[in-house]
Amino acid sequence: MVDLSEKLREYCEKVNNALDIAIEDKDEPAVKSMRYSIFAGGKRIRAAIVLAFCELFGGDINKAIPFACAIEMIHTYSLIYDDLPCMDDDTLRRGKPTNHVVFGEATALMAGAGLYARAFETVLGCSGLSSEQKIEGMNILLSASGLNGIISGQMLDMENKPGLTEDEVMRIHKLKTSAMLEASAVLGCVAAECSDKEKNIALEYAKNVGLAFQIKDDILDVCGTVEDMGKTLGKDKASMKTTFVDILGVENAQKEVDRLSSKAKEIVCDINGCEFLMSLAEYLANRKT
Amino acid sequence: MVDLSEKLREYCEKVNNALDIAIEDKDEPAVKSMRYSIFAGGKRIRAAIVLAFCELFGGDINKAIPFACAIEMIHTYSLIYDDLPCMDDDTLRRGKPTNHVVFGEATALMAGAGLYARAFETVLGCSGLSSEQKIEGMNILLSASGLNGIISGQMLDMENKPGLTEDEVMRIHKLKTSAMLEASAVLGCVAAECSDKEKNIALEYAKNVGLAFQIKDDILDVCGTVEDMGKTLGKDKASMKTTFVDILGVENAQKEVDRLSSKAKEIVCDINGCEFLMSLAEYLANRKT
Repeated sequence: MVDLSEKLREYCEKVNNALDIAIEDKDEPAVKSMRYSIFAGGKRIRAAIVLAFCELFGGDINKAIPFACAIEMIHTYSLIYDDLPCMDDDTLRRGKPTNHVVFGEATALMAGAGLYARAFETVLGCSGLSSEQKIEGMNILLSASGLNGIISGQMLDMENKPGLTEDEVMRIHKLKTSAMLEASAVLGCVAAECSDKEKNIALEYAKNVGLAFQIKDDILDVCGTVEDMGKTLGKDKASMKTTFVDILGVENAQKEVDRLSSKAKEIVCDINGCEFLMSLAEYLANRKT
Repeated sequence: MVDLSEKLREYCEKVNNALDIAIEDKDEPAVKSMRYSIFAGGKRIRAAIVLAFCELFGGDINKAIPFACAIEMIHTYSLIYDDLPCMDDDTLRRGKPTNHVVFGEATALMAGAGLYARAFETVLGCSGLSSEQKIEGMNILLSASGLNGIISGQMLDMENKPGLTEDEVMRIHKLKTSAMLEASAVLGCVAAECSDKEKNIALEYAKNVGLAFQIKDDILDVCGTVEDMGKTLGKDKASMKTTFVDILGVENAQKEVDRLSSKAKEIVCDINGCEFLMSLAEYLANRKT
């Protein structure tokens, strides 16, 4: 098997270097605020999925870097907004004070908007992709982050209350979390100029990993430690949200995570070079953070 | 001369029809909130500039409609955020309660983000523009709305305080207001597949109109009526911001508006079909709302 953490570190370094250029350090509060959150120590799972699918299907990883940066910028923007007082009102993220705690709400708001804009500028401004690849990539990013993705997920999650059905909870998480993981996988394929068949493989892998990821998140919200997770826990219970743990119980929820993780692995296991994506699915099912 | 209000109404109707389709009515809070602000009775000056330059240079106005919609969506998004409690904390806009007053802060936040995303989706999803036109248009929209446009303008305006120089005030307004008006003019040219020379004419017109527009805004903040303006007035003074009126006085500020308006008119006056843009520059210099 491939050394997962070694490969993750390699991907992470490439993406961080590109992000450091894409959001150039300046003595401006909005830029400081953007950099604070984008370099807050995220694991870059989404970027890794972009790069891994590009590599898996024989693409040039450098062409996928702008997409990987864009997906991390949009993910970070959504976390900044998620933490705002009018949303989840959270003060801790990745073991650090949240953006608005450090920079104030107004700057956090502008930093989020700035990251969203810069994500698209990064894609449009890169030299390695064709116009068609850029447009296809932008459509994927917009679909995952717009009204058919994160925004609807956030709106539904705001109305999340006790007694939702499994389907209703699944719909929230599909929009809030899976949509971006699915986008990551397909963006890697766009960079590698893949066939529709290959894109479907990536999409199916990401659907399973995405759902497993969110169920695991629900489990960790109950069973994890603040030290490991670096964020406030027990929040779902406090805010009376229905989670997969409420519906399935911890034990069955973990079984579902394992089942989805195995399914994700099955989808890619016959493809040459699948080791990293196999290990990643395994890791996400058993992570403690 | 052309009948300005008649032509404005015609443009406005075209854009409103397209916006009604682009943000389809749904029984979802984010969509209701987006539609509330986008159909709050804005004058569609920016959209009109897009369409007018497209027509001036012989383009098909239907090709410019997606750009006109996008610019109005981004403008509306910036107003929603501008009014939020953590920004200007305003309760009145276009004579109606501001978005967060009606829908709550969280929904206003998501509606703004939704409008921004939908602006780009509208451009990418349209059938009349080539990939190159879409990419050029997206770059223009991102540049005006991102870190080199509205966001920097907002950040600087948050630090606006007594005693700024004319250059400093001008820089704020260039980023906060003119950038979007300039983008509108150039987007019309992109839709009409204009030459660089034509784009420069549009840009110069918009620079002058944009600055005149903002100085007039500062004058109206002192001299206008809440009934005419439909928003809270005297805010710049209350928030201790330096305005053009502070620097120039009301009389000289109006002289500067007239000078800039004349300059804008001079730039287009020799072009066949310039009547609407001539009247618009005149109107913006003398508006009461």
